[in-house]
Amino acid sequence: MIYITRRETFSSAHRLYNPTFSDEENERIYDKCNNPNWHGHNYVLEVTVCGYPDPNTGYLIDLKELKKIIRTHIISKVDHKNLNLDVEFLKGIIPTVENLAVAFWKELEDKFTNCKLYRIKLYETENNVVEYYGEKIDLHKFV
Amino acid sequence: MIYITRRETFSSAHRLYNPTFSDEENERIYDKCNNPNWHGHNYVLEVTVCGYPDPNTGYLIDLKELKKIIRTHIISKVDHKNLNLDVEFLKGIIPTVENLAVAFWKELEDKFTNCKLYRIKLYETENNVVEYYGEKIDLHKFV
Amino acid sequence: MIYITRRETFSSAHRLYNPTFSDEENERIYDKCNNPNWHGHNYVLEVTVCGYPDPNTGYLIDLKELKKIIRTHIISKVDHKNLNLDVEFLKGIIPTVENLAVAFWKELEDKFTNCKLYRIKLYETENNVVEYYGEKIDLHKFV
Amino acid sequence: MIYITRRETFSSAHRLYNPTFSDEENERIYDKCNNPNWHGHNYVLEVTVCGYPDPNTGYLIDLKELKKIIRTHIISKVDHKNLNLDVEFLKGIIPTVENLAVAFWKELEDKFTNCKLYRIKLYETENNVVEYYGEKIDLHKFV
Amino acid sequence: MIYITRRETFSSAHRLYNPTFSDEENERIYDKCNNPNWHGHNYVLEVTVCGYPDPNTGYLIDLKELKKIIRTHIISKVDHKNLNLDVEFLKGIIPTVENLAVAFWKELEDKFTNCKLYRIKLYETENNVVEYYGEKIDLHKFV
Amino acid sequence: MIYITRRETFSSAHRLYNPTFSDEENERIYDKCNNPNWHGHNYVLEVTVCGYPDPNTGYLIDLKELKKIIRTHIISKVDHKNLNLDVEFLKGIIPTVENLAVAFWKELEDKFTNCKLYRIKLYETENNVVEYYGEKIDLHKFV
Repeated sequence: MIYITRRETFSSAHRLYNPTFSDEENERIYDKCNNPNWHGHNYVLEVTVCGYPDPNTGYLIDLKELKKIIRTHIISKVDHKNLNLDVEFLKGIIPTVENLAVAFWKELEDKFTNCKLYRIKLYETENNVVEYYGEKIDLHKFV
Repeated sequence: MIYITRRETFSSAHRLYNPTFSDEENERIYDKCNNPNWHGHNYVLEVTVCGYPDPNTGYLIDLKELKKIIRTHIISKVDHKNLNLDVEFLKGIIPTVENLAVAFWKELEDKFTNCKLYRIKLYETENNVVEYYGEKIDLHKFV
Repeated sequence: MIYITRRETFSSAHRLYNPTFSDEENERIYDKCNNPNWHGHNYVLEVTVCGYPDPNTGYLIDLKELKKIIRTHIISKVDHKNLNLDVEFLKGIIPTVENLAVAFWKELEDKFTNCKLYRIKLYETENNVVEYYGEKIDLHKFV
Repeated sequence: MIYITRRETFSSAHRLYNPTFSDEENERIYDKCNNPNWHGHNYVLEVTVCGYPDPNTGYLIDLKELKKIIRTHIISKVDHKNLNLDVEFLKGIIPTVENLAVAFWKELEDKFTNCKLYRIKLYETENNVVEYYGEKIDLHKFV
Repeated sequence: MIYITRRETFSSAHRLYNPTFSDEENERIYDKCNNPNWHGHNYVLEVTVCGYPDPNTGYLIDLKELKKIIRTHIISKVDHKNLNLDVEFLKGIIPTVENLAVAFWKELEDKFTNCKLYRIKLYETENNVVEYYGEKIDLHKFV
Repeated sequence: MIYITRRETFSSAHRLYNPTFSDEENERIYDKCNNPNWHGHNYVLEVTVCGYPDPNTGYLIDLKELKKIIRTHIISKVDHKNLNLDVEFLKGIIPTVENLAVAFWKELEDKFTNCKLYRIKLYETENNVVEYYGEKIDLHKFV
């Protein structure tokens, strides 16, 4: 088993708040991340797939193909976007880094043929990062 | 002459557009940075001051003091904020990375006593960075 | 299951030696790390916790809370300190990067309520790093 | 169980092609990596070993020893070399990053006494990286 | 005056040798960089231009435009290429990192209209880097 | 004119204090850096030399030679050492990052023949860095 990872980046605005909470609750829980005028990040996304390399090519997956899949299904939809307002597959989801990782997994998991998705790693800042390995988590939608 | 630099980070939302341009012009010039729903970045700010170290302390400036000045006058005002809407000293200024560097210089230049501000270096992404050394540039305000 | 990591840094002095070894043994085993006048490092500590995000907040743990726990129980006790002399919970422990990781685990493991400690990752330099997942290791104390 | 990692770097030329494929197939599959005049990379190799630290030294393995093993068996053989032409243990192997990781594992796995090889992590660029944990993979040799 | 920098990367093979030197001289001077089977690097290229931002746009240069110029005139010609054999503008030039920086300057200096080229910074490895500001240097061609 | 830089690292202990100050003054001025039991850092040293490349070799200076000069005259004397106690050329000097940069300049400035020392850049942490270009500064010695 080989694990191969591609690193991509995107820049987005977001706001953390739950529409079923009061303003005071949102303020208390999300603090400065609850700014109604938004804030944003340069996210770093690392997508890992695993499997056995084709003995004739030595490739588990062509890294250009892995890059294309990530850019088509994730980056093109979230880069220079508002994660609360602009992204169909995130509608109603509180865009914490935890929830984003789960949502990205759902978008990517059925996109690979000779290997399978192993890990989503998502950096919100250089000091904060989440890893998700696909164990079932239901994302609650607040709409 | 010694040059000493302190690195700080902040995360903000912004949008590039000029209210005196048509929507088509804004779209053509700023492209995906013109998203009306905003996008955002993890900015990295490096502030350099220069001067002669005090021979008795070996300090040009106490780095804790340099950090405090940057946090008080810049970071606390821009971190987790919308650079178009939330920041008094940026009101009416198009928040390109060029303009931000000039605006930060203006906020910081008179804040040092035994050394002087030498350079503002501002990373918008890991690939895009601006340096400004204080040569006079007037920021146009569009309000 | 989601894994969330917070990165913190600290700067400390230390010396590697075992008081039950002869000077020659300490010299042979620890080489330049055995300098009786000490040396030091900028350590990078990454603490990972795991669990299920609260569906109502999208948070596994508030990263400000994770940061506070690490700073209270580790960073405030080791930063700008001598790891052999100044730190109560390291007394008598040879401060190799392996032992430090185990000792930090012991300080942190009972500090989380809705998630649990998963990994301590500790960089001594940019080229040397240890990971520890909590499998029982007894630290020998030489006092 | 403790996991300790040493990071080393090397710079090499290589070309991806399978001599049993037609030129058209090699071109289609390996694209710009198939340049007959070669290209090259600064590889970053991270070797992780695991085991229990010696309670008397606090060392799982002396990092100078780990460094020496990696340099003797890998770096000295691949650094400033052509991975297709110059390296005995890579003869006939297509030098994809996947195959290199497996080949490095085979060179290193029997070199440790009080700990065992746990992971080979190999960066071909800052965006592309492979991890291998030693699960049996036969490398096909095309000679 | 504002200085704006764009970072790009490329991966190439090369060999250092002077065809007018004896084999012994090439070996003595260039050592392992003289490997006749080539070696290679992941180069990091930082191109800095300077000038005054347009007050109406806040742009010195659109960073997408800067990126396009670098990719068209440099990256597309050197990435996944052999710097001794494949690059028209490097023919006969010994591809040391010093000479590459000067050659890249010559390719780029007349490509900017509202700003001017200020600096070429080229990393051959994470530890070795050259900066060039355009002061006249004639590159000797050995053909 | 070409500028070429070599990056090296070292790990040392130090303490900031002036023996002519009272304990209270040392405490007030140097705060946690005044810990009598020392603390330490992984320093990153970047040495830049400048000049004109030899047209026959394309080298300003062989980077192996630059590395050797830095290691012989600086790294071997400060790595895994106590900067207050163990280093002849630092005796009596308060080891602030400013003073270290000046002291390193003095050690290196006469060591180059076909190029000259241009800049010492010294990182004490990832956030704090000093640059020195050799303008005359007398280091006060407190012995």
